[in-house]
Amino acid sequence: MTKIEALIDKIIQRVNINLRELEFDVNPYIVNINLKCRLSKFYAFYGITPYHKLSFKFIHSSLAGSYFLGKSQIDHSVLYKSDIRGDELKSKGTTYKHKNYEIPVYNDEEIQITDSILIKTLVHNFSHNPENLEIFYIKNTVSTHFANIHGSPTEGCFLGPFSTVDLTTIHDCVIGEFSYIQVEDLAHKRVNPGTIKVRYKNIFDFHYQFSKEILKKYIDFDSKNLPVGLFMDFVENRKVDFENIFEVITREHSVSIPDNTALDRYAVVRGQTRIGENVLVAQRAYLEDASLGKGANVQENCYIINSQLEGYDITAHGAKIINSRLGENIFVGFNSFVRGKVDKPLIIGDGCIVMPHTIIDLEEPLIIPSGFIVWGYITNKEDLKLNGMPIESFSNIKNEFKLGSLKFTGNGGIFIDSFKERIEHILQANGAFFNTSNNDDYGGHAQKNQNISFNTIQPYPGGDLKGIYPTMEITP
Amino acid sequence: MTKIEALIDKIIQRVNINLRELEFDVNPYIVNINLKCRLSKFYAFYGITPYHKLSFKFIHSSLAGSYFLGKSQIDHSVLYKSDIRGDELKSKGTTYKHKNYEIPVYNDEEIQITDSILIKTLVHNFSHNPENLEIFYIKNTVSTHFANIHGSPTEGCFLGPFSTVDLTTIHDCVIGEFSYIQVEDLAHKRVNPGTIKVRYKNIFDFHYQFSKEILKKYIDFDSKNLPVGLFMDFVENRKVDFENIFEVITREHSVSIPDNTALDRYAVVRGQTRIGENVLVAQRAYLEDASLGKGANVQENCYIINSQLEGYDITAHGAKIINSRLGENIFVGFNSFVRGKVDKPLIIGDGCIVMPHTIIDLEEPLIIPSGFIVWGYITNKEDLKLNGMPIESFSNIKNEFKLGSLKFTGNGGIFIDSFKERIEHILQANGAFFNTSNNDDYGGHAQKNQNISFNTIQPYPGGDLKGIYPTMEITP
Repeated sequence: MTKIEALIDKIIQRVNINLRELEFDVNPYIVNINLKCRLSKFYAFYGITPYHKLSFKFIHSSLAGSYFLGKSQIDHSVLYKSDIRGDELKSKGTTYKHKNYEIPVYNDEEIQITDSILIKTLVHNFSHNPENLEIFYIKNTVSTHFANIHGSPTEGCFLGPFSTVDLTTIHDCVIGEFSYIQVEDLAHKRVNPGTIKVRYKNIFDFHYQFSKEILKKYIDFDSKNLPVGLFMDFVENRKVDFENIFEVITREHSVSIPDNTALDRYAVVRGQTRIGENVLVAQRAYLEDASLGKGANVQENCYIINSQLEGYDITAHGAKIINSRLGENIFVGFNSFVRGKVDKPLIIGDGCIVMPHTIIDLEEPLIIPSGFIVWGYITNKEDLKLNGMPIESFSNIKNEFKLGSLKFTGNGGIFIDSFKERIEHILQANGAFFNTSNNDDYGGHAQKNQNISFNTIQPYPGGDLKGIYPTMEITP
Repeated sequence: MTKIEALIDKIIQRVNINLRELEFDVNPYIVNINLKCRLSKFYAFYGITPYHKLSFKFIHSSLAGSYFLGKSQIDHSVLYKSDIRGDELKSKGTTYKHKNYEIPVYNDEEIQITDSILIKTLVHNFSHNPENLEIFYIKNTVSTHFANIHGSPTEGCFLGPFSTVDLTTIHDCVIGEFSYIQVEDLAHKRVNPGTIKVRYKNIFDFHYQFSKEILKKYIDFDSKNLPVGLFMDFVENRKVDFENIFEVITREHSVSIPDNTALDRYAVVRGQTRIGENVLVAQRAYLEDASLGKGANVQENCYIINSQLEGYDITAHGAKIINSRLGENIFVGFNSFVRGKVDKPLIIGDGCIVMPHTIIDLEEPLIIPSGFIVWGYITNKEDLKLNGMPIESFSNIKNEFKLGSLKFTGNGGIFIDSFKERIEHILQANGAFFNTSNNDDYGGHAQKNQNISFNTIQPYPGGDLKGIYPTMEITP
């Protein structure tokens, strides 16, 4: 048994012991993915900038194709083409507010990934665990293709493909494919595939369940097969474009960008693409015939194809926008799939909220009016009636509300307000509102991520340690 | 003053205080080179293999374009396009013989470069300082273009372009351009440009002095100008070929090579080039219409152009062979320049020794007979009479001998025998004699350097630390 095989085995054992109550065995999933053979093929890379805390520890891990920015420690783990983005970690000296508590942060927060396997997973933002402010930990966890771990400490869990855990602390859970969970805490639970849940104490509970038939078309996954479906085909078909950009050391994009915009060197840009001011295009983003207005952002694993974003639009991690015309101030949530037809583009009016994990896949022309919130599965006007409504109406929900497969309990006003507040924060953090005349404002990601050096690192090329990376410690 | 400017200033101060007795000021030389502007442009890289000790520490240094293999620590230094090759460092547990002493080596030897500026310099082999076996140190030293520091601990020194210090410990010295020094110890000396000196106690002393006029044609350097001359033009004209190979992450050479041969991914291969078994082609080597027979090696900064090496030939660091036909078992020493004309190739017979820093630049056809030793400056048959003789005759020198600009004192037999012993060792270390049927032989560089992963590292791209590399510690 080679060192890499022993490492994978050890991680699986750790995860399985945590999932024993749920009688879940991670092993066949990992066997299917045939990870071992892929781990020597790709380099990993970490970013160096004047603006982000520089601190990396890589200890006896395999990091093929993964990306690191900010303070992180990876220990006895396998990260395959995963993005560890620490550019919003809490800083030493700041204060974290939790209910009535104001807790000072003693040390720069660090992402710690221990005894875990992450496959094409995004880890971002800062930990929402008030008990352990300085550490955003992922431990004894296996996460699969295009999962998002967003500010969510995670221990002993299995995350299915295209699932998202957002601002949630989870212990010993199995999160089904394409499920979105934002629920503060979750322990010893098995979340069915296609569950969308946003809950905050007894104040609100947004719950939507995709049907098995629809889910199967887009993403299908079990212990006997690799993930398949339209989502997988979509990304696989565009993989070769990324391979080309990872093959060169330095790279100039063919598109010109304004001074206050960041276009990552690991993004793909094709066709007639136009990029405005204060825009962030992150690594592994894909633009083709895209027009991005001022303050728009396109985050990791997002695709904007033959589409226009007028400005101050958010495309959250993993969202895809195809053949669409978006107005201003539109939020498209994690892993959403938003597709018009070439000759029948989807029109989304100003100020709309597309909930995380929404699928809009049109079979006829559709206009989503300004100020709408949409969720679930929409292919035509009829679907929109059951999967969307004016934000204002949603705000007026006082207690219980059912529509199609949505069940909402609690206060719609607080739900919408907290969403809007978050959207504002995301735009701010991404530098959408940056103004050079404001001297004491250093901007957000669109400004700070403009000039990143990337170091590329590789594993042992042969011998017993083949596929394992040397131990590295990088500090300022 | 930026951090990089402060670092350069500090190093210059350290070197100058060491050179105060010689009244030598390093500053104008460094000002001319305009190093600062070059330091942000190139990545550095270090190799990972199963065969070489993995241990790197990079501390507050600038490493633009430099290469590292083996155990090394770079501390508050500026290394510009330099090669730090630690693949022959002494290993823990081995024994070092010095006269009648047999000294056990306690720790894996480490190259330590502190408060130094190295420009396009090669550092290789292990320290010959018996007082400090575990450390091969270079401290408070400035070395310039294409200098070789070969097993030579160096403290408080300035090395001119194309100079070589070989198996020598030097303190507070100025070594002129194109000088070659192999003299055990040297302190507080200024060595004139174009001095070739191989001395061992009172046993032998080989001394050759290039004339100023000849030297000026090939390499000319002073405190007011960048180095110029034929040597500089030669390498500058081929620089673009190297730029291309540094621009891609992975790379397949177009030439096919046998199993037991190492062709570095950072070597240039052009034209009709053929590479035989047990051959080492190191990084920054340049092959164009070259034919390399079994067991030949082409080390760093070597150029083989329109030439044939029949087998077991050594091209030592920085040597250039153009329009030449070499037989077997030929040694071409450091930084030698050996050039026939396209239609009048230089022929060198079997078993010849071309001394380090020899210039053979033909104006007429020339055959150097088998078993000759040559040195100095040779352009035609007449020159050969004053700059070469049969090795056998040289071996018979008993006391004093003068020929042209050569002055030899001592025992020619011991001089030749020690040279031959060294040639045998070099071939062995490079894996020239490797035989797969010999199971317990893991070979030399030609075998062990076949499969190297290279990690590429870059400095801070902006801010006060622009051009400085993060602090890194890399261990197995």
